[in-house]
Amino acid sequence: MNQLQQPGHDHSSAYLIRRLQELLGPAGVITEASEQEPYLRDWLGKWHGKVSVVVRPANTEETAAVVQLCHATHTPIVTQGGNTGMSGGATPDDSGAQVILSTTRMNRIREVDPVNNTITVDAGVILAHAQEAARQAERYFPLSLGAEGSCTVGGNLATNAGGIAVLRFGNMRELALGLEVVLPDGRIWNGLRGLRKDNTGYDLRDLFIGSEGTLGVITGAVLKLFAQPHARATAWVGAASLQQLVSLLTRVRARCGERLVAFEMMSARSLELVLEHVSDTRAPLESKTAYNALIELSDTEDTGLQAMLEDVLGQALEEELISDAMFTSNQSQTAALWKIREGISQAQVRAGKAIKHDIALPISALPLFVAQAEQALADSGMTTDLINFGHLGDGNLHFNVLLPASTEYEAMKSATAAFNRLIHDLVINFNGSISAEHGVGQLRRDELKHYKSPLEMELMLRIKQAFDPNHIMNPGKLL
Amino acid sequence: MNQLQQPGHDHSSAYLIRRLQELLGPAGVITEASEQEPYLRDWLGKWHGKVSVVVRPANTEETAAVVQLCHATHTPIVTQGGNTGMSGGATPDDSGAQVILSTTRMNRIREVDPVNNTITVDAGVILAHAQEAARQAERYFPLSLGAEGSCTVGGNLATNAGGIAVLRFGNMRELALGLEVVLPDGRIWNGLRGLRKDNTGYDLRDLFIGSEGTLGVITGAVLKLFAQPHARATAWVGAASLQQLVSLLTRVRARCGERLVAFEMMSARSLELVLEHVSDTRAPLESKTAYNALIELSDTEDTGLQAMLEDVLGQALEEELISDAMFTSNQSQTAALWKIREGISQAQVRAGKAIKHDIALPISALPLFVAQAEQALADSGMTTDLINFGHLGDGNLHFNVLLPASTEYEAMKSATAAFNRLIHDLVINFNGSISAEHGVGQLRRDELKHYKSPLEMELMLRIKQAFDPNHIMNPGKLL
Repeated sequence: MNQLQQPGHDHSSAYLIRRLQELLGPAGVITEASEQEPYLRDWLGKWHGKVSVVVRPANTEETAAVVQLCHATHTPIVTQGGNTGMSGGATPDDSGAQVILSTTRMNRIREVDPVNNTITVDAGVILAHAQEAARQAERYFPLSLGAEGSCTVGGNLATNAGGIAVLRFGNMRELALGLEVVLPDGRIWNGLRGLRKDNTGYDLRDLFIGSEGTLGVITGAVLKLFAQPHARATAWVGAASLQQLVSLLTRVRARCGERLVAFEMMSARSLELVLEHVSDTRAPLESKTAYNALIELSDTEDTGLQAMLEDVLGQALEEELISDAMFTSNQSQTAALWKIREGISQAQVRAGKAIKHDIALPISALPLFVAQAEQALADSGMTTDLINFGHLGDGNLHFNVLLPASTEYEAMKSATAAFNRLIHDLVINFNGSISAEHGVGQLRRDELKHYKSPLEMELMLRIKQAFDPNHIMNPGKLL
Repeated sequence: MNQLQQPGHDHSSAYLIRRLQELLGPAGVITEASEQEPYLRDWLGKWHGKVSVVVRPANTEETAAVVQLCHATHTPIVTQGGNTGMSGGATPDDSGAQVILSTTRMNRIREVDPVNNTITVDAGVILAHAQEAARQAERYFPLSLGAEGSCTVGGNLATNAGGIAVLRFGNMRELALGLEVVLPDGRIWNGLRGLRKDNTGYDLRDLFIGSEGTLGVITGAVLKLFAQPHARATAWVGAASLQQLVSLLTRVRARCGERLVAFEMMSARSLELVLEHVSDTRAPLESKTAYNALIELSDTEDTGLQAMLEDVLGQALEEELISDAMFTSNQSQTAALWKIREGISQAQVRAGKAIKHDIALPISALPLFVAQAEQALADSGMTTDLINFGHLGDGNLHFNVLLPASTEYEAMKSATAAFNRLIHDLVINFNGSISAEHGVGQLRRDELKHYKSPLEMELMLRIKQAFDPNHIMNPGKLL
């Protein structure tokens, strides 16, 4: 490797910084260690790295200029949005050779078109701001997840984000119509088309979505909007088994169709953890059941939504498919249920150290998978405190294992490896996914290599080679 | 080019046929000219080609064996499903060097999973059979188009088919969860995952979808199913302008949300043509209006669907947004309206020769586009009989020009070139697509090269090179 390829080296690093300052001005270049610090670590505190410089281009053209320079100098680029990732995908390595390209200054809502039902945004727009811009135009942008107040649309696209409304509206891939991308050589691909039908060649858009910054820098997007929901009905149910919840899901879907927007599952242990660690929460039901679900319907107008939900759940109660149910009658009751569901992450942090899994399975396979996984965990002789919750309607479980907060780094590391192997082996047996919505990043890179077929890895590497032959886009992540 | 690369040549062709007969048995190999004939021409009678052999593998393994052999002998493959394409994408060239790989013997419904809401099928399954298998499991597969009785799921995937329910359910890309593909070297990629969330690397699936047989042979797919609709409300409206229909669409969408499954538009001339050329059709409204729309709502159960439609259209009538409306009160009335809409293709064939366009625009741009296109056609001095109809809810127009049936081949060819340039130039000005749902194939290959940015063409060619370096998959199509 020569000096040009090693910008961590004093000489080339100084050159790079001087050129970046010329291109972006002082506002676009951060060289002070203390100012760089927030960009160098992920919010979970799991990963930390070093860079020569953090750049914050103000627009697509500045981004293209930065990437051109990095292309010419073989400088690796780590693109970072709101830095809310769960898998270390936006944290640099510790070589000091990488550059962070932060999209956060690119935060314009470019256009809202309520007739075409689309919104066009810069990649650095915060998800909640995109939602708000849609709302102001009396439209609805449905992507919703815990970090929505700080994550960016670009990050959502790079990781093909999911969240709580995928069941109804799909993940980010299904919500995107067009993209603008700066390619690894600094050229700009304008794919900002707001069309529902466009069959003019290969689907470049969906190749960039979910590629975690390894094929280019997404700088803008056209996203789908929907009719605003004006009615909502929410319930909490308890069931004796996961199989019963899956049967209930099937029934609610057939009856309510696309009104069903959320079907969130929590094991008894997950609920208990929230009640213990998150203030102002109380059990929605008097009886304790093995599994709970938060079910929500929504509609553009109220044609008896609550009655429909009461009817379908009432019948399930009568047939003893579920053991209990409660319906909310105002917004604060609904908010209280969502607070429980959204409190699980926080409760885990307070209760100990979690080995997190982000798996997806065919919904029909979930009960058997969970039974076999629980059995395998019991057979393993490892102490397990299983926190099983997730988006049942998407077949997406966060099948986490909680360890005591006192667990040392090395013990955590070996436990993680052991649990990963046990759980991921089973996931693959059921034709599932070891990475459903949090991305691969650094966290699951080795797991991906372990489980993906050599053929699929080869195809991905061929695409990587075709787009980024110098491997400057987010090296060390995903592939 | 050596003999191996030219299987049209006697020696290598005889070798190829002998090997194929060994691999597939007599049922899988067609060498008789008369038996080959139906595979050699498209159903519109626009394209015709020659091959040394037509193969009909019975399953994925046989397909892989065929492709391996073609890979080894550098024999180009044209994959063909139901042969119902509109763009010549499945017709061989006239060199005799190509081989047709027909998927029609691969027609098994592999699995219906009503809990996971998925169906897994061979690529050669006829679309209507997939719909029927879903119905038998009390589920709904929404892709619907004119050729559904003979087109195959594999062809629908290869062309990312659209049709009449895209507005609500998306096109084939949004309906597919997993694929099985034989790659250009004969290896089988098993991507048959039935998952709603899966972020484990690049999106290979969507690269194959819409690639028109140029990257591999799709042999199987997992498709999404939905709740069965049990209620339907249909209306026909007349409006004085396209702008008024677009405003109505916006209003119906905001009010009815995802109940809206079809919003089909027809100009007065399109309607007139159907009434003239298709038997048992009559004008739905007494008054003649510049534009007509067929609007359909559906729902899993009837919570006042008809009343909702009457209300929203009644209000539009009151405000003079539309000039007239009729509602159907039974299935045969509804069928009569759909007969008009679906009769346009037939009416065009009977009335003359049509220069067909398959364009998409942002919905908000449609009225201005049509006004400018009509003006440009008038200014051009060319005689024009414009048949403007399409899927307004998707921004997809079939903006056709009808010429007398007597028009000679050369005159047709030059008129097509002239009209294409005029209309496609305008489409591109409005950031639209020159190929919305019928695919590029042979028909629009030169147009694609003319209009795509050199950068986008370059990226596509790099993908082609990465997947099919010998260029044996459907050469002469798409790219």
